[in-house]
Amino acid sequence: MPPDQPLVLRDARDGVVTLTLNRPARFNALSEAMLDALGAALADTAADADARCVVLAGAGKAFCAGHDLREMRGQPRLDYYRELFARCSTVMQAIRAVPVPVIARVHGVATAAGCQLVAACDLAIAGESARFAVSGINVGLFCATPSVALSRAVSAKRAFDMLVTGRFIDARTAAEWSLVNEAVPDDQLDAAVADKAAVIRAKSPAAIRHGKALFHRQRELNLADAYALAGEVMAQNMMEADACEGIDAFLEKRPPAWAKREG
Amino acid sequence: MPPDQPLVLRDARDGVVTLTLNRPARFNALSEAMLDALGAALADTAADADARCVVLAGAGKAFCAGHDLREMRGQPRLDYYRELFARCSTVMQAIRAVPVPVIARVHGVATAAGCQLVAACDLAIAGESARFAVSGINVGLFCATPSVALSRAVSAKRAFDMLVTGRFIDARTAAEWSLVNEAVPDDQLDAAVADKAAVIRAKSPAAIRHGKALFHRQRELNLADAYALAGEVMAQNMMEADACEGIDAFLEKRPPAWAKREG
Amino acid sequence: MPPDQPLVLRDARDGVVTLTLNRPARFNALSEAMLDALGAALADTAADADARCVVLAGAGKAFCAGHDLREMRGQPRLDYYRELFARCSTVMQAIRAVPVPVIARVHGVATAAGCQLVAACDLAIAGESARFAVSGINVGLFCATPSVALSRAVSAKRAFDMLVTGRFIDARTAAEWSLVNEAVPDDQLDAAVADKAAVIRAKSPAAIRHGKALFHRQRELNLADAYALAGEVMAQNMMEADACEGIDAFLEKRPPAWAKREG
Repeated sequence: MPPDQPLVLRDARDGVVTLTLNRPARFNALSEAMLDALGAALADTAADADARCVVLAGAGKAFCAGHDLREMRGQPRLDYYRELFARCSTVMQAIRAVPVPVIARVHGVATAAGCQLVAACDLAIAGESARFAVSGINVGLFCATPSVALSRAVSAKRAFDMLVTGRFIDARTAAEWSLVNEAVPDDQLDAAVADKAAVIRAKSPAAIRHGKALFHRQRELNLADAYALAGEVMAQNMMEADACEGIDAFLEKRPPAWAKREG
Repeated sequence: MPPDQPLVLRDARDGVVTLTLNRPARFNALSEAMLDALGAALADTAADADARCVVLAGAGKAFCAGHDLREMRGQPRLDYYRELFARCSTVMQAIRAVPVPVIARVHGVATAAGCQLVAACDLAIAGESARFAVSGINVGLFCATPSVALSRAVSAKRAFDMLVTGRFIDARTAAEWSLVNEAVPDDQLDAAVADKAAVIRAKSPAAIRHGKALFHRQRELNLADAYALAGEVMAQNMMEADACEGIDAFLEKRPPAWAKREG
Repeated sequence: MPPDQPLVLRDARDGVVTLTLNRPARFNALSEAMLDALGAALADTAADADARCVVLAGAGKAFCAGHDLREMRGQPRLDYYRELFARCSTVMQAIRAVPVPVIARVHGVATAAGCQLVAACDLAIAGESARFAVSGINVGLFCATPSVALSRAVSAKRAFDMLVTGRFIDARTAAEWSLVNEAVPDDQLDAAVADKAAVIRAKSPAAIRHGKALFHRQRELNLADAYALAGEVMAQNMMEADACEGIDAFLEKRPPAWAKREG
């Protein structure tokens, strides 16, 4: 790969920002440099007032094969590993901090921290031939940080099974377990992702942004606190121009015209 | 609708209390008056010592289409919306506070806060043609309070997908995702709901009441605290006449005769 | 049963410890003596540095039929019940405290606290003819402590339905709901369990032990705390000989040779 090729490609079109992990020769491994590049791309996107939806994809044959094991073995120091996994966890949480929905577009393999990326995204669509594993256990390294995202996406017994066996599951199984939202024929993957992004793009930007933040926050609260927070968010949402326009349009049986979001 | 028609019909038969949202011309929208009527009906039922099971249904073509958008737009004040969503959240939590199981009987559409009602009930049975959506996003209003109930009923990725796309899912999908317990042929919906209510009605009233309260409380505790609470509830349950009778009947291979609950 | 037959059989072979509930004439009911025997067996296994995986099975026609109702009725005192359920909850939590994965091998029926055992194990494989119920409600005793494990294994509406109806679900349904990982033909049950144990046995003992403890701890934390803990565990794991060996073996395309664990 020429040195001037960025590790994460960014393509923004009509509010849909596609971030493509671009180290295909290494199956888009999450090296330090890749984590930095992805973190920076997510931060840029978070600050982009025109962004309406993000697609996270991988170049080449795989979505993402997890950490860069060779690089990791080159620095056998506890402090180094602490910093590395903290950095990786920050990137995973940055997906949640992006104010618009992030869709994983999954093809090939998604293993270890690559599978974690899928779990950490708000939505995921996979090609039928895609395969998923949290395979660190096969090299003597339990996928601890991936288990955080995985166990919040799929049921306890299924997550535990994947983590201690390191086995692959196929895309259809991933959809049944709700690790991904859908498995589609490989040749329809781009269209399915584009369709989902287009649906989201057509919604009120303000409502989507308030909604994503609320969704993740309320999940960590008890029921009464969750309702209190959600009620406040919804009341604020009702005072926005888009809600007024959207409801008026609905009552008048015409399509809504959302306010353009100001940076 | 004549003014003397109540907004919520109440029919009690053999301990099964059926509450029917009764504003069919407006698809049983949760107007302020409807929320008040439903809250009052739930409070009455909570205080009814003879109640063994509650069925929540909707009159006309739909189960419930959510908030009354026209009414909401008529009062464009933050304080009004805060009060409205707080009131709605109180009603949703009142379903949990009813001491006996509440079964949603779902036909037609269950949208926005109507879908939330389904998620908030203890059990739900749907006719095959029923459809579900948290569709506020289509009018610029993210279904924030519905997301609280929905994300506690179905997995994260599925809930998020419904919330940001506003799309409908059919009854079979709702059952696969466990938003409802079953999807049955439309012409068997009443029989399926009646059968479920009859099964619950045949159980010890005391055990059902202790159980429902415990079930929801322990879900919000960590494992050790949940076990401590559940152990105490179960010990108290063992001291009740019904547990003694039930176990003795089981050991003697005869049907149990539960104590009549005193108000 | 002769008095010298132990209530829990223990068989250790190549690191796979099989614990068999051995009171077949009583469907392996969890009497006080059985709870003590199982607790002791789990404690022994937890202290066994050679253990790599545990299989929990039942002798005779059933996996486990729950508490010993006759014994329970013989001591109608609140303090007795409090102590009994606390003891049972301690045993259930001891499954989680065993440092290696515990696989339930389920055949026949798993009812009440027997169903709870299945839910409390890390993994479960069932024969197709196995059936599951939390059936205490049928004798006037809500399965309160089983609800703790069950509601952490399957979705809320499904758990609630089982708890208030006491109905049986078959093995295929249990797999769809992820109460068990798989339902296999009865005559393949032992092979399926042995295969799963063999897969786990082939992994790094250190990584499996760190992983199991982390998995359960992080599930009870909020996202940020879970990631902080998981990152620390993973960094420590990277400093172990097995991770170095595993990654080097992977990079050199040879099978790894794990360190022998010292007691």
